Amino acid sequence: MKQRCTIALDAMGGDHGPDVVVAAALSYLADNAHAELILVGNEERITRILGDASRERLRIRATTQEVAMDEAPSKALRNKKDSSMRVAIDLVKNGEAQACVSAGNTGALMSTARFVLKMLPHVDRPAICTAVPSLHGHTHMLDLGANVDCTAEHLFQFAVMGSELICAVDGVDRPRVGLLNIGQEEIKGNEQVKQAHELLTRSGLNYIGHVEGDGIFLADVDLVVADGFVGNVALKSSEGVAKFIGNSLKHQFKRTWYTRLAGLIAMPVLKNFRRTMDPRRYNGASLLGLRGIVVKSHGGADAIAFENAIYIAEKEILANIPQRIGEQVGRHLVGSDQYQETA
Amino acid sequence: MKQRCTIALDAMGGDHGPDVVVAAALSYLADNAHAELILVGNEERITRILGDASRERLRIRATTQEVAMDEAPSKALRNKKDSSMRVAIDLVKNGEAQACVSAGNTGALMSTARFVLKMLPHVDRPAICTAVPSLHGHTHMLDLGANVDCTAEHLFQFAVMGSELICAVDGVDRPRVGLLNIGQEEIKGNEQVKQAHELLTRSGLNYIGHVEGDGIFLADVDLVVADGFVGNVALKSSEGVAKFIGNSLKHQFKRTWYTRLAGLIAMPVLKNFRRTMDPRRYNGASLLGLRGIVVKSHGGADAIAFENAIYIAEKEILANIPQRIGEQVGRHLVGSDQYQETA
Repeated sequence: MKQRCTIALDAMGGDHGPDVVVAAALSYLADNAHAELILVGNEERITRILGDASRERLRIRATTQEVAMDEAPSKALRNKKDSSMRVAIDLVKNGEAQACVSAGNTGALMSTARFVLKMLPHVDRPAICTAVPSLHGHTHMLDLGANVDCTAEHLFQFAVMGSELICAVDGVDRPRVGLLNIGQEEIKGNEQVKQAHELLTRSGLNYIGHVEGDGIFLADVDLVVADGFVGNVALKSSEGVAKFIGNSLKHQFKRTWYTRLAGLIAMPVLKNFRRTMDPRRYNGASLLGLRGIVVKSHGGADAIAFENAIYIAEKEILANIPQRIGEQVGRHLVGSDQYQETA
Repeated sequence: MKQRCTIALDAMGGDHGPDVVVAAALSYLADNAHAELILVGNEERITRILGDASRERLRIRATTQEVAMDEAPSKALRNKKDSSMRVAIDLVKNGEAQACVSAGNTGALMSTARFVLKMLPHVDRPAICTAVPSLHGHTHMLDLGANVDCTAEHLFQFAVMGSELICAVDGVDRPRVGLLNIGQEEIKGNEQVKQAHELLTRSGLNYIGHVEGDGIFLADVDLVVADGFVGNVALKSSEGVAKFIGNSLKHQFKRTWYTRLAGLIAMPVLKNFRRTMDPRRYNGASLLGLRGIVVKSHGGADAIAFENAIYIAEKEILANIPQRIGEQVGRHLVGSDQYQETA
C-alpha cells in the first residue's frame, strides 16, 4: 500500500481554471485511495463544478484572489496573499499538504514558492525540470526558464538536483548527465558551459559530457542540463516542430480521396503514434531546489494532462525529493571542495 | 537568360568528400547552362570520379591539403594554405569565382573566410543563416553557431543582414523579423535580448517583436534572430525531434501485419510528407557579413543536398548579396544614430 499523501491544487490557475482542475482531481482520487486533495480557490465555482460528485478525501480551501496569467510576479507576490496559488503554496509550507500543483503563471509560481518555501541549503536558485519523450523512453531537461543567466555553479547545482530526481522517481541508479552545448570546434560553448563542464567532469555524477540539441531526443542520456534561456528555447522549438509535423501529416492525408482513404486505414496506427507522442503524458514540471514540492502544469493543460502533473507531485512526495536533493547537493559540494583541496 | 556565374566548390569537405561534391556539380551543371563550376581539391580523386563525364563549364583546381572535420580552426588557418577549403575561398577573394560552397568544418570555414575575405564595413561578426520549413512555407534563422556571446548590437546587425538576404533571395518586400526569446514574464529574456529589442523596435526593419521557440515553425515570421548558442540549440533540437518523430512513425507502421499493410497503402502519402520535410531541400547555410559569398553545406550532405547549397550560392550571386548587405547595414546604422540624436 502506498504511503498516505495530501496534495494542494491551485484550482484557479491555467487557461481553464477549476473546470480542468476539478475534473483532474476527481479522476485522480478515484484511482488513488491513499491520497487526499485540497482544492484551493473560489469555493462557489468549485462547488458548482463538483456538483454531486463524491467529496471523499477531497477538501475545498476557499480563497478570494487569483493570479492572472500575465501578472508580474512581484505584483502577485505583494498583492495576492489570498490567491489560490499563494494559499496552495502556504499549505505546503505549514504542512497541511505535502505538495502543490498549479497551472498558473510560471513566474509568479516561482517567485511565490521561493519566497514562501525558501531554498534548500547550498542551492542558489530553483530550476524547472521536466521529461520529454525520446528514442530510449524519455529524457529529463532542466532548467526550462527559471534562470536566464546562469553561472557554472548554478548549472552544476541543476545537474545534481536533476540527477537525484531521476534517481528517486525513475529508479535509475546513476543517471547519465549531459551538458547542452553546440558542436562547433574552438567556438565551442560559452564561458559558463566550459566551466560547468570542468565542475561536472570532476564531480561524482555520471557525467557523459556535452550533448547537442538533437541529443535531447536521440542520445543515450537521462538528464540534459542547460541555462533557463537555452533550455526553454530547446523545449519550445521542439514543441513547435512536433506541432508543425503533426499539422503537415494531417494535411497530407487530407489532400485527395485516395489519401483520405489511406488515412482512414492508417487511423489506428496514427492514433497509437499520437498517443505515444501525447504531450499530456509528459505534463508537469518540477520546481527543484525548494524546501517543498511544487509542480507546474502547462497553462493550457486539460484534465488528463493536469492529472499527470498530480501524479508527478505524488511521486515526489513518495520519494521525499526535497530532502534527498538537500542531502545530495550538500554531499556533492563538500565533495568538490575536498577535490579542490587535494588536487 | 540568367547572368553568367562561377562558383568554387570545396571538393574535399564534408563526410563524403568528392564523391558527393562531383555528383552534385554534374547534376547542377546539366540544368544550368549559365553557370561554371570550379572543383577544388585532390585532382587525381576528382578526375577518377568524373570519369567520362562532360567537363564543359567545369574546371579542376588542384590542391594538396585538406582540413579535417575536427581540426581546430586556428590550426587550419595557419597550416592549411593549400587546402581545398582555403583555395576555394581564395578564388572568391581574387575574383575567379563569385561564391564558394563547402561541406567542411564549420569553424575552420568561418575563420578562414573571415581572414581571407574580411568583414563588410559596420559588421562586427559573420553570422550563419539558414531556412527551415515552417507552417507558412519557411523561416530563416540566424545565427546558428558562429557567435556564442553576442551583444545587442550584434543581434541587431544579424537582423539587418538576414532581413536583406530574405528581401533579395525570396523577394519578400519587408520581411517580418522576430527576436527569439522566452515567454515567462519578468524573467523575460537576458540583457542582450532586452537591449536588442529596443534597437529593433526603433529601427526601420519590419520588427514584429519577441518570438518563442515554437514560433520558428508556427508564427507568421520570416526571420528569427538569436545568438549563435541559442540558435544552434534551437535548430539542432528541432532536427532531433523531427528524426525522433520520423523514427517513431516508422516503428508504429512496422508493428503488426495490419500496420504494415496500412503503411503500404499510406506509402504515397508518407513519401510526399517526407519530401516536404526533406532536410536536403533546406541544405545550405549562408555566412553573412563577409565581403564575398560563402555557403556552408551540412557535413553529411548527399549529392541532392549539396546541389541545393550550390543553388543558394547562385541565388546570392544573382542578388549581389554582400554589396546589398553592406549598403543596408550602413543605412540602418546611420538611421539609428539619427534616431538617437533626434530622440
